[in-house]
Amino acid sequence: MLYTHLNRVIRRRDLNMMYVIGPGHGGPAIAANTWLEGSYSDLYPAVSRDTAGMARLFRQFSFPGGIPSHVAPELPGSIHEGGELGYSLSHAYGAVLDNPDLVVACVIGDGEAETGPLATSWHSNKFLDPATDGAVLPILHLNGYKIANPAVLARIGDDELTQLLEGYGYRPYLVDGAEPEHVHQALALTLDRVLDDITAIQTEARAGHAVPRRPWPMIVLRTPKGWTGPREVGGVPVEGTWRAHQVPLAGVRTSPEHLRMLEDWLRSYHPEELFDAEGRPVARLLQQVPARRMGSNPHSNGGLLRRDLELPAVAEYAVPVEGPGLSEHEPTRVLGYYLRDVMRAAAPYRNFRVFGPDETASNRLDALYDVTGKAWNAEVLPTDEHLAIDGRVMEILSEHTCQGWLEGYLLTGRHGWFSCYEAFVHIVDSMVNQHAKWLKVTRALPWRRPIASLNYLLTSHVWRQDHNGFSHQDPGFIDHVVNKKAEVIRVYLPPDTNTLLATADHCLRSTDYINVIVAGKQPQADWLAPEEAALHCARGIGVWEFASNDGGVPDVVMGCAGDVPTLETLAAVSLLREHLPTLKIRVVNVVDLMRLQPASEHPHGLPDADFDALFTTDRPVIFAYHGYPWLIHRLTYRRANHDNLHVRGYKEEGTTTTPFDMVVRNDLDRYHLALDVIDRVPGLAQRAADVRQWLVDQRARHHEYILEHGEDLPEVRNWQWRAS
Amino acid sequence: MLYTHLNRVIRRRDLNMMYVIGPGHGGPAIAANTWLEGSYSDLYPAVSRDTAGMARLFRQFSFPGGIPSHVAPELPGSIHEGGELGYSLSHAYGAVLDNPDLVVACVIGDGEAETGPLATSWHSNKFLDPATDGAVLPILHLNGYKIANPAVLARIGDDELTQLLEGYGYRPYLVDGAEPEHVHQALALTLDRVLDDITAIQTEARAGHAVPRRPWPMIVLRTPKGWTGPREVGGVPVEGTWRAHQVPLAGVRTSPEHLRMLEDWLRSYHPEELFDAEGRPVARLLQQVPARRMGSNPHSNGGLLRRDLELPAVAEYAVPVEGPGLSEHEPTRVLGYYLRDVMRAAAPYRNFRVFGPDETASNRLDALYDVTGKAWNAEVLPTDEHLAIDGRVMEILSEHTCQGWLEGYLLTGRHGWFSCYEAFVHIVDSMVNQHAKWLKVTRALPWRRPIASLNYLLTSHVWRQDHNGFSHQDPGFIDHVVNKKAEVIRVYLPPDTNTLLATADHCLRSTDYINVIVAGKQPQADWLAPEEAALHCARGIGVWEFASNDGGVPDVVMGCAGDVPTLETLAAVSLLREHLPTLKIRVVNVVDLMRLQPASEHPHGLPDADFDALFTTDRPVIFAYHGYPWLIHRLTYRRANHDNLHVRGYKEEGTTTTPFDMVVRNDLDRYHLALDVIDRVPGLAQRAADVRQWLVDQRARHHEYILEHGEDLPEVRNWQWRAS
Repeated sequence: MLYTHLNRVIRRRDLNMMYVIGPGHGGPAIAANTWLEGSYSDLYPAVSRDTAGMARLFRQFSFPGGIPSHVAPELPGSIHEGGELGYSLSHAYGAVLDNPDLVVACVIGDGEAETGPLATSWHSNKFLDPATDGAVLPILHLNGYKIANPAVLARIGDDELTQLLEGYGYRPYLVDGAEPEHVHQALALTLDRVLDDITAIQTEARAGHAVPRRPWPMIVLRTPKGWTGPREVGGVPVEGTWRAHQVPLAGVRTSPEHLRMLEDWLRSYHPEELFDAEGRPVARLLQQVPARRMGSNPHSNGGLLRRDLELPAVAEYAVPVEGPGLSEHEPTRVLGYYLRDVMRAAAPYRNFRVFGPDETASNRLDALYDVTGKAWNAEVLPTDEHLAIDGRVMEILSEHTCQGWLEGYLLTGRHGWFSCYEAFVHIVDSMVNQHAKWLKVTRALPWRRPIASLNYLLTSHVWRQDHNGFSHQDPGFIDHVVNKKAEVIRVYLPPDTNTLLATADHCLRSTDYINVIVAGKQPQADWLAPEEAALHCARGIGVWEFASNDGGVPDVVMGCAGDVPTLETLAAVSLLREHLPTLKIRVVNVVDLMRLQPASEHPHGLPDADFDALFTTDRPVIFAYHGYPWLIHRLTYRRANHDNLHVRGYKEEGTTTTPFDMVVRNDLDRYHLALDVIDRVPGLAQRAADVRQWLVDQRARHHEYILEHGEDLPEVRNWQWRAS
Repeated sequence: MLYTHLNRVIRRRDLNMMYVIGPGHGGPAIAANTWLEGSYSDLYPAVSRDTAGMARLFRQFSFPGGIPSHVAPELPGSIHEGGELGYSLSHAYGAVLDNPDLVVACVIGDGEAETGPLATSWHSNKFLDPATDGAVLPILHLNGYKIANPAVLARIGDDELTQLLEGYGYRPYLVDGAEPEHVHQALALTLDRVLDDITAIQTEARAGHAVPRRPWPMIVLRTPKGWTGPREVGGVPVEGTWRAHQVPLAGVRTSPEHLRMLEDWLRSYHPEELFDAEGRPVARLLQQVPARRMGSNPHSNGGLLRRDLELPAVAEYAVPVEGPGLSEHEPTRVLGYYLRDVMRAAAPYRNFRVFGPDETASNRLDALYDVTGKAWNAEVLPTDEHLAIDGRVMEILSEHTCQGWLEGYLLTGRHGWFSCYEAFVHIVDSMVNQHAKWLKVTRALPWRRPIASLNYLLTSHVWRQDHNGFSHQDPGFIDHVVNKKAEVIRVYLPPDTNTLLATADHCLRSTDYINVIVAGKQPQADWLAPEEAALHCARGIGVWEFASNDGGVPDVVMGCAGDVPTLETLAAVSLLREHLPTLKIRVVNVVDLMRLQPASEHPHGLPDADFDALFTTDRPVIFAYHGYPWLIHRLTYRRANHDNLHVRGYKEEGTTTTPFDMVVRNDLDRYHLALDVIDRVPGLAQRAADVRQWLVDQRARHHEYILEHGEDLPEVRNWQWRAS
């Protein structure tokens, strides 16, 4: 019903409209309507607009390998994976950003409306610029029930509901009824009104004067669940109750009565009046189809519209490096200069935004504010800074909303960047799952053109929560994404400023991936000069010659991935080379974590011969890793030298403490790494008993010192790389 | 200020009150106040209520190994880990369920209020019974700013804000000001009013007549951020702006001016009037301390109040099993009978609730409705079923709210059960992290008494999403929890009905764990008789003799964990024993996944000798696993026979399809497992080339059959265990 009514207003107003379906099992609505309008057959010619095609359409529904009952990538016109609930409205808002002519009609189920992500995404209207962005028309569908329960918003009365929606900043129009003809009339009238309201708001905003935020119109549609379906089945009411959920007639295969009821139900729509003898929709129906069909709106297949970013040359932002460890920079701050100019270059095309839960400045990307503001369409005080109604940095303290906006923005053909505290990106674990599934499915759908990758910058990471402590320490998002299909996942751990820049450049050029970059925001040593960094990132993994003295045949390999593990590894190497100068050490740094996997498991996987050339087949490997250590085992268990691999990483030991104490608590510190080397290289523990004891003593000294001074040992704080 | 005002009303009304602090960096408020009232020193005598103790209190704050700036388990009176935002209100509601005399004052930050979980948790009032539950007093603190941005709710004007909160079902009282004396007066007056309102609502509800839901009072407190702190620093305003966030004076160590400002600021509170010469609070302050101190409220240390559940004997619910695979049951349905009687036995104590996002009936636990209803305090229609204002099944379509309620309920000393679709439990990944961290920290705090475990039943799992399809398929929650500290995590995969019952019984008796149980709801074969199931679950892992013919020296070990993998393994064994009767097969079933880890890694870890006795040190092991296969490698990579371990599991290949097609798509099917055996047992592929080809042909037949018929091969659908 909604699709048909929207078609009417599209025709009448020549609207550029998309449709987002939030309610669970909402797939049939868009499958059927895009078939009726012809969009479906355009993309899937075998599902033709005739009896044979109709049979295929029906049969593939919920059939093995067919299409699911939820909105999904296979469906024309959809940018929304509808299986998990809660994201329809943030997807819709993401789609209209920078699309001033687009209107997204977004149906929200009253079940979905109970989810947290949906409940806060109503506030997206405070981040929308009516002049430069399009409009979202929320249609809250109160059919009253979820799977087995009434829905909260359907049972709080019209007064409370109206207050709630007005409080969210909307003007709700109620369309309520159980008698189809009445509802049709009321809905048509209401749609005209809300579209007039939208036009009025946009016209006012686009007249060139600053105007205060207006309430946006929305529709509350209250109709029975299972409306026009069977009223009663087996003596209990079905229409208008939760029993209409999903399968109102469960016994059609075995019960002649159910089969008859199904037939009566379907015949009640008078198909003989709707289709001709060949199963084609009759002319009267086809005349309702607008030229601008929602199932063929190019925004819903965003890759069609995607325009590559014009990226500035990384070299211009790279920091000069006189030698390893001789200078320090804050990697994310330097990245901020680069992102600022990405933003500047994208300004004419308005196709790049940066998203974050109130952390863009905390994550030191604030150079962005030289060229744009933070989107804000609510009250502004004189002391505020960097707020702008058309700002292109999107900050709301809701990771869910940031993620939903960004997904909607990417799926409609634009580019984005999401920076987030590492521990709290887990808040969107489940949303990431759905986006990864979307990307996986679209790889088998040639008509879905590639969209820009979803780029995460995880900073304020596990090792530097000096004052926030244990609650802010969790590096497990990497583990989470690595479970997704290998072809859509990339994970990068740039160890310094120049490698972060090279990684960012690479990610912003890529499509159809989920890129996870973990990088620090605190001042830290520069290891690689710009051209070295570019080469290292292109390889993704490599020997660091400046730190190695193995001459091709190491006694031990020291692997490292992540900024803090790299620092501790180099400090351990420095200690070892000072105290045990004849020990032959090779340092291997990993930027692209997927290089560790076999080539059979991941497109970036290193061939076994290359892996063995780096890590040997028989020497001990001490690997210092940013996250949970077992991930490294998981990635490498098929490698020849796996039995000699010894991994240190975060083992969930944390508290409010200094940077070095954190690594000590997790046995990732330089002294412990050096001890690991001494204990793993055959015979060394005997030969180097004095060095071993000194390292043990250093750890004990650290414990005493920190308790007394509340800061790390001076030799740790002031440490600088020396290859002895 | 709030703590002091609450103390006043506690004294005046003899309230049983707890305090939940939502805002970030809210730890100092409760640390300081519980020290002032004496609760802190009671638990930490070294932090005495005098100069020395005060110095310790100050020094440990944000000091290495000290206490974080967020509310945390170390803090007396807290049930709330405050580092991640969004859960204060659902924790508060969970705490007052079944505590009719308890009032929880819950401060909500205006930053936190933007999160999705918080935005929907306002609706918790529709699930509260004013007669049998206590009251939550939400105090929305609008200080106007987050880290670097204004807060949405502080910038929508009082009209919209009032509408929003009234729409949520509250009566907001605004206390607004920047002049302390005025705010003190207004707050005192308002607190008296809201507590009168609460009393009125409770009195009416407890008079014995059904009354409609009333709006609950709440406070909106609008005061400047950084109030009474430095007005300006370095020429820019700080008080009343985001710059007051966390550290308003950053330069006290290096800038004499900042140090002077800090001193002026602290002296402005006239400490000389508040403390005596020994640093003790003066009598005037101590007289304000109520007898019922919030920092010593026993509900905030729920283990003190926890009463063991009176569990019915599992044997009474166990299904009779004549022999392996001869009968079928729906495991979760039978579990429902058991949970019904757990609920019944707990009725006098009101200390058990079942939580779920609208899925309790879908997950077939609906026997519960024989003894209780679903909590519902909103409009009721005649067609509704099982709704009750004092119902003990809590269903809202928000995994976040279910989790938050349950955490609050457990932390205040009660018991619970959370059933959830497996894929969507990822929605609470981040909340689980925080609860696991809480449990880990409390193990080092002897004064925190053990609380009931957090029990998850994950059902509607990855292998049986026949119609929901790919979006509903994700077994990765196990991977997520296994990253947490080993001593707080337990994972169980009962393969049939009787093992599920034994597992549930075990989990409901345990404390301080997070128990994850994965079990199916679809009809499936019974393998073990009740006493066998009890023994198998007690061991957690074991040889299934009925399926094994190895006589102590197997040619191959077939491991399995999970209901569907167990079925496919047994079907593979059946095929192999029929076609290759001389092949010696041992079947090892795993219920307790943590048994696979070395004893050094997990308290449940099997000693190496026992592991080797089960899995041998040199025979091929074909392991069929419920989830992502690499987890099994991660758990076993240190075992002697790991190089011979070959794992099949979910590798992210899914769609809308039949149960058997799902396992085929992921190479977990009986034919593939049998092929794996043939290919891994030395020489067998040559000897059994014909069997091998037949298995390959069977898989091809499946593909053809399913495309034609839309259902699985008859020999798969009708398969029954036969040991040939």
